[in-house]
Amino acid sequence: MIKRITHIGVAVKNLKEASERFRNLLGVRSPVEESVASEKVKVAMFELGETKIELTEATDPSSVIARFIEKRGEGVHHISFEVENVEAELERLKGEGFEVLEGYPKVGANGYRVAFLHPELTCGVLIELSEKLH
Amino acid sequence: MIKRITHIGVAVKNLKEASERFRNLLGVRSPVEESVASEKVKVAMFELGETKIELTEATDPSSVIARFIEKRGEGVHHISFEVENVEAELERLKGEGFEVLEGYPKVGANGYRVAFLHPELTCGVLIELSEKLH
Repeated sequence: MIKRITHIGVAVKNLKEASERFRNLLGVRSPVEESVASEKVKVAMFELGETKIELTEATDPSSVIARFIEKRGEGVHHISFEVENVEAELERLKGEGFEVLEGYPKVGANGYRVAFLHPELTCGVLIELSEKLH
Repeated sequence: MIKRITHIGVAVKNLKEASERFRNLLGVRSPVEESVASEKVKVAMFELGETKIELTEATDPSSVIARFIEKRGEGVHHISFEVENVEAELERLKGEGFEVLEGYPKVGANGYRVAFLHPELTCGVLIELSEKLH
């Protein structure tokens, strides 16, 4: 079951500059920063009620974030939904005709197990399912 | 002050088909539908905790949603932040170097006064500020 939107992922070219922008925009303190070596990215997470904003910069040209920016420029990259059990939710969604991107589920940022759905079947929106690992 | 993300706006080609997709995705009941003549769109709003999902179809080729889809295809169009007072928040943001899109603030969907920030200054993310009118 999908419970809520945990965060909106934004692809940015320069995490330091983007963080400064979003600090001014949101009028909040500094974000929590993290590197995710497996995805070749570094992220800055801004708390804002139930749904956070996750700015993401590629640390390598082969990262999906680098390829996204090359193709479309900076902007919203994905929306992340919290689920109780990624595997069970993927089974349900496959039954509804959705497709899971290759290589997922796997462990992503912040200690979550994540999987992405193919955006062609979700109106161009890249959707991440994330399950908090205890 | 920005309080929370009220919704994520998604530009879609066919509201009926997109609503069916998102109903299956989210496992929820039918969305609340509304037409916004001033913006030449019709929208379907899915409740999901604090942050909703707003699917938007153009009802006229001159709508910004039609032009967005023509240029970039379906996908996330904007993120909407709830504020207490749009005018006051715009003053603060202009002081921080952000720009307001021409023609705003004005009254949008759902009885909110809204304004958009220029996405070049927010890492390619089109940001809406919305104030609930009482």
